[in-house]
Amino acid sequence: MNALVKWGLVLLVLFSVLLNLALVVVFSRRKPQCAARSKHAAQGKHDEQSRVFADLSRDEYTQVQDYMLRQKDLSTCTRLKTRPDENFLFLIDLRVPRKSEVLKYLDARGPVPRREATVVVFYGAKGYIKEYEVGPLPNPTYHHDVTRERYGTDLPLSARPVTIGEYIVRFDMLKDLLFLPLSELLHESFGLDDEHQLQSMEALPRGTRAGERKTWISFCRRLSGMYIQPVGFEVLVDHHSTNTSQWSVERLLYNGQYFASVDELQDKYRAGTVQKIVKTPWEDYGSLKPRTHPLQLGPQLVNPEGARYSVSHNHVLYMDWSFAFGLSSLTGMRVFDVRFKHERILYELSVQEAMSVYGAVTPGMGMTKFLDSSFGIGRFAHELMRGVDCPYDATYVDTYRYVDLPGPMRFRNSICIFELYLGQPLRRHFADFFHNSYGGMANSALVFRTITAIGNYDYMWDFIFYQNGAVEAKVRATGYISSSFLVQDSLKHGHQVAPGVLGNIHTHFLHFKVDLDVAGVENMFQTKDMEYRNVSLPWMPQHYAMVPHLVERTLNTEQEAALRHGTKTPRYLHISSNRTNRWGHERSYRLQVYSFAGDHLPESQPEERSMSWARYKVAITKHKDQEQTSSSLYNQNNMWSPAVDFSTFIQDNESIYNQDLVAWVTAGFLHIPHAEDIPNTVTVGNGGGVLLRPHNYFDEDPSIDSPDSVYVGPGSESSCESNRMACLAQETCAPELQPFTYGVQEEDLPNFSEED
Amino acid sequence: MNALVKWGLVLLVLFSVLLNLALVVVFSRRKPQCAARSKHAAQGKHDEQSRVFADLSRDEYTQVQDYMLRQKDLSTCTRLKTRPDENFLFLIDLRVPRKSEVLKYLDARGPVPRREATVVVFYGAKGYIKEYEVGPLPNPTYHHDVTRERYGTDLPLSARPVTIGEYIVRFDMLKDLLFLPLSELLHESFGLDDEHQLQSMEALPRGTRAGERKTWISFCRRLSGMYIQPVGFEVLVDHHSTNTSQWSVERLLYNGQYFASVDELQDKYRAGTVQKIVKTPWEDYGSLKPRTHPLQLGPQLVNPEGARYSVSHNHVLYMDWSFAFGLSSLTGMRVFDVRFKHERILYELSVQEAMSVYGAVTPGMGMTKFLDSSFGIGRFAHELMRGVDCPYDATYVDTYRYVDLPGPMRFRNSICIFELYLGQPLRRHFADFFHNSYGGMANSALVFRTITAIGNYDYMWDFIFYQNGAVEAKVRATGYISSSFLVQDSLKHGHQVAPGVLGNIHTHFLHFKVDLDVAGVENMFQTKDMEYRNVSLPWMPQHYAMVPHLVERTLNTEQEAALRHGTKTPRYLHISSNRTNRWGHERSYRLQVYSFAGDHLPESQPEERSMSWARYKVAITKHKDQEQTSSSLYNQNNMWSPAVDFSTFIQDNESIYNQDLVAWVTAGFLHIPHAEDIPNTVTVGNGGGVLLRPHNYFDEDPSIDSPDSVYVGPGSESSCESNRMACLAQETCAPELQPFTYGVQEEDLPNFSEED
Repeated sequence: MNALVKWGLVLLVLFSVLLNLALVVVFSRRKPQCAARSKHAAQGKHDEQSRVFADLSRDEYTQVQDYMLRQKDLSTCTRLKTRPDENFLFLIDLRVPRKSEVLKYLDARGPVPRREATVVVFYGAKGYIKEYEVGPLPNPTYHHDVTRERYGTDLPLSARPVTIGEYIVRFDMLKDLLFLPLSELLHESFGLDDEHQLQSMEALPRGTRAGERKTWISFCRRLSGMYIQPVGFEVLVDHHSTNTSQWSVERLLYNGQYFASVDELQDKYRAGTVQKIVKTPWEDYGSLKPRTHPLQLGPQLVNPEGARYSVSHNHVLYMDWSFAFGLSSLTGMRVFDVRFKHERILYELSVQEAMSVYGAVTPGMGMTKFLDSSFGIGRFAHELMRGVDCPYDATYVDTYRYVDLPGPMRFRNSICIFELYLGQPLRRHFADFFHNSYGGMANSALVFRTITAIGNYDYMWDFIFYQNGAVEAKVRATGYISSSFLVQDSLKHGHQVAPGVLGNIHTHFLHFKVDLDVAGVENMFQTKDMEYRNVSLPWMPQHYAMVPHLVERTLNTEQEAALRHGTKTPRYLHISSNRTNRWGHERSYRLQVYSFAGDHLPESQPEERSMSWARYKVAITKHKDQEQTSSSLYNQNNMWSPAVDFSTFIQDNESIYNQDLVAWVTAGFLHIPHAEDIPNTVTVGNGGGVLLRPHNYFDEDPSIDSPDSVYVGPGSESSCESNRMACLAQETCAPELQPFTYGVQEEDLPNFSEED
Repeated sequence: MNALVKWGLVLLVLFSVLLNLALVVVFSRRKPQCAARSKHAAQGKHDEQSRVFADLSRDEYTQVQDYMLRQKDLSTCTRLKTRPDENFLFLIDLRVPRKSEVLKYLDARGPVPRREATVVVFYGAKGYIKEYEVGPLPNPTYHHDVTRERYGTDLPLSARPVTIGEYIVRFDMLKDLLFLPLSELLHESFGLDDEHQLQSMEALPRGTRAGERKTWISFCRRLSGMYIQPVGFEVLVDHHSTNTSQWSVERLLYNGQYFASVDELQDKYRAGTVQKIVKTPWEDYGSLKPRTHPLQLGPQLVNPEGARYSVSHNHVLYMDWSFAFGLSSLTGMRVFDVRFKHERILYELSVQEAMSVYGAVTPGMGMTKFLDSSFGIGRFAHELMRGVDCPYDATYVDTYRYVDLPGPMRFRNSICIFELYLGQPLRRHFADFFHNSYGGMANSALVFRTITAIGNYDYMWDFIFYQNGAVEAKVRATGYISSSFLVQDSLKHGHQVAPGVLGNIHTHFLHFKVDLDVAGVENMFQTKDMEYRNVSLPWMPQHYAMVPHLVERTLNTEQEAALRHGTKTPRYLHISSNRTNRWGHERSYRLQVYSFAGDHLPESQPEERSMSWARYKVAITKHKDQEQTSSSLYNQNNMWSPAVDFSTFIQDNESIYNQDLVAWVTAGFLHIPHAEDIPNTVTVGNGGGVLLRPHNYFDEDPSIDSPDSVYVGPGSESSCESNRMACLAQETCAPELQPFTYGVQEEDLPNFSEED
């Protein structure tokens, strides 16, 4: 027994020692998990004052909605199926407080600006639209009609976008007036049956003059990316009246032939006097489903020591940067009070508008001009896919919106914020003369991103904050192109891209508001360029040569500073201060626009005033609270008499010398669709933007102070003292990643009532 | 004793079990090391035929050198200190075989083209330069003088760059003729002593007419980045004669005043009739040493399952791409036989030239026009810093060169190749109508990079291969600006950037050769653009509107297709084939140039012909073996009668219809230096390039076949089936990194002989 115990113990010892050895062997190649939290606290502190720019919370939306519903005299409703002849509470959004009030609050211990909402009501029963300021939040007690103050005019009901309620009525109408009578034609031509359905794509604007609401609807196969599945059947619907029983189908286009009524098409079709469309099998060429299995993982961006930025509420800290952010349902993303080393550089940087003009011989695309902010750019900032839309390890932020729904809705992970390593140096120099040395640093920058999918197109919007004090506003386009059914003469307007499908030529114009405050609000607009001048050389006076000279100008009025597309523009554009840097030069930020835009729409066209901002590459105006946005919710549906005509900002030709200035920047490109736009347009090469760069703003490049700086001199080649890279191989760890989630959850949705 | 053993055993058991527990606890949070090798074999096979484009190996250089030295009639020497009146074997480089021979070999089982070297000899004793073809390799047996065949003229000795040998003589001369006599002035003005030394910076070209070799030398403090440390002392040295005893100092500039001789300056200085420079303390503001300690690591790019590309010899495989690569000592990096899905798209994509023109009132910068390929762009492709110049985990390739040294030299890690995750989708679409679904893929692309530091400036050259079939050639500038000492009127030519230092206005023009072969070598040059035309609408014939139309043209001759800066150019430029894609459109690649270049040099200037390529944004020529490069080793030092004048390629105005075409692309920008260029210019915003994009080349976007595609439909939100991202968090591992190394090793250097 004793011996048994002894041998048992010996065996146990042996087993345990072997287990120890095994554990050591098994684990020896294992590595530590990376820090989930930042190893070092973020520089600076989050600024609670930035809440002044914060979007409304779910509670705040509800408070405003409840307040509005309590005002019995307004008699608004919020049902999803609100009819066009009813009064509909369409939109609630933050009313951004006035700049003067905010600056007093931020810079001069002024009172907190009142927190207010903008509310838009479509008065279907009365024939007009009203905008209200509702406040104060929380617990609103007042509402003011600010329609005339904001737009200088009343807003006719016809200027409103089509609500879900109106779409539902129109859908039912088309079923009754079109799909039922034409079921034979639709089956024979397009193979329509229970499994094969059509979807509708709208042309805009809805008519050719103010007050009209006649929409050409193109029908497309209900397959992935219906936008590239047109069948060659289009109808013109007049849905102007709030009495929906008066709506009618005015024209029809079938296989390139026009008909005045459903009956006419029906009769001629049956009589065989119509050239019929030959039914073809449905091909799902717009599918985005992978055709191969995921193979080896591509490169991933990881933060081995945790994030180097910090997001709190609507405030971001990153290295020397800080800013507040928000997302307007209409204009999209925006940042405010952008500071570098505690000094404000931008008061506001925001998306304003996305415009497209199409060409075609057929009506669905032939007159189409899209103004996305009338649909709502921010409204369509949907959930971002980890690892595809943004790096897996990014910070994802939820947003809340109240647009055309019975209550506020949550959009999970609809903003992403991350530090991007661009795979290149921000700066570097290799010295090989006399002393071999190397100095440089990797280019890592903070990216603030939303992606908005407004129907067919997806725009990726980036604001990027670099360690050298530069900020970039950048947009890339992807998603589906719009298309039309191929008929005679179609190829005058694009290329064929799929069976029977024309990819229509179109433009993309994107508009940014850049409210720089360079060393204070009082700024000038300066241009710089180079000019060759023939000069006698001081050291050889008999010899003349063309020598580059610096040419500087200050532009003093709004009209001088409205730089049109198609004109020669100085290469350097600056918002500058009369304060100087250490070397005596005006401190400035340079606007470097990269864009392939031009030819927005001839000014002869009645729709042009609704997009008059697109005339200019860059326009500089004096800041005014009444000139908050370059477009409006109402520009799309009343292009002929737009609520906001940007060109009027410039017409009064005010002085821009030592004033608070706003730069309005247009970027974009011409898109001639080609086969490779199927199924989706790629982001590579399709975009534009503007880079805001310090130019004599500092006394030297501020990135020299970055802790990312690397220096290697003779003898210190393998030292980690000034070069973290030299130790990287010894410090590797496995990144700790958040679990993957995707999709709308029940609790994100507004409360739909029974009657919805 | 027995009890002691027993208790000993018990203790041992306890200890061992505790150790087991401890090991499990300690290691439980540890993660596996990532795969060092690729998890899946690369698609495709490496192509040994690509060796035809491979640079010479160290052995091959030595074979050619030995062969040349054996040719007693050539009487060349290879000593580092070879004097200007001796014959010097300056350069050995691959002679790229003729395209026609290579295509026969690659495509038609033709013979292997003979492997040959180009050898450049400066015949100091005879007053001319010769270029030879030496072959075959290995074991060369012949050499042919190809000077006239290549340049159509003899090359005068004055066209040669300054060799290290010549610099050494000039350095000694300046010491004797300048530094010794002026030691008092230099000490009093600049604080020169044993610890404070000056370095010289050269102005180019060396004179104002052919045959001259008069160089203005500016003196700078020997501190970090001497280029931004000018002291205000410049001298003009005539070093034209091969008899170095005839060299002389012709003019001097001191503090803005000119002197005809050292004696004159000396006398006037001593007489006190010269306005003296007030000695200031030396400030090392050009230092790149970090001012803060490295803190938290920034984001890193890792390949959790190993690289997805493969590099073998000079051949690269990546997804659907393959290409051969090389590095010309003169023109820089280049790739050949670039294929996508096995089909050749580019025969050659290469850097050609980097040019800068400066403005100043002082001679050092006043007439300066740099043509970097005459120094050698590839020659200065130095070692890349892991984690700064390229991602740490990139593949680094050594190169070998023979330029101005007594033998071949190895440049470790001078090319990097890596897959870059760009932090954004290549394409994506979020569908919110009817069926909520998401499809997209991350944009990961292969980058092929060198960084060349030619004196002050560092150019980062990237060729980027995207998964949608696009290729990009891109350049970014960083490093030090050139500068001059601040004197009266200096500010006409730039801004002050440091104490007494003017950052001089200058241009950057970069030239690329883009030899696309689109579906074969016979191609056309097409342009596409949009034009508004007033048309009667087919569905409303009484109504006229301006509608976007597609305008296509084919340009048939070289002169038509030479698109000058400052002229309106169609927005789409295509190299196309008369073969069509599935939809009947000409298969093509589009050249999308992004550049801020313009105003290279008025054509009235005698130096202009040496850089006449810079007249054009894009020029299309018929491929010719004699039109291999747009510049030459000799253009810088004989700008007035350049060995290669690109404009002559166009002068013969050949047909470019259904020919083998080469596109020559210029990118660049105007640089008005500002305080933030100190210490280094940042890469952000400073660059340009060209994107080559498929346009009706395929039948749809080829990226749809990528294994990186992600799709999420209703119900599959958390499935990993079509979305690797959904599993990423469970699969993390620690990347395995190569050990860090940096610096030139003994074995990299050529064998210096005693007399060197």
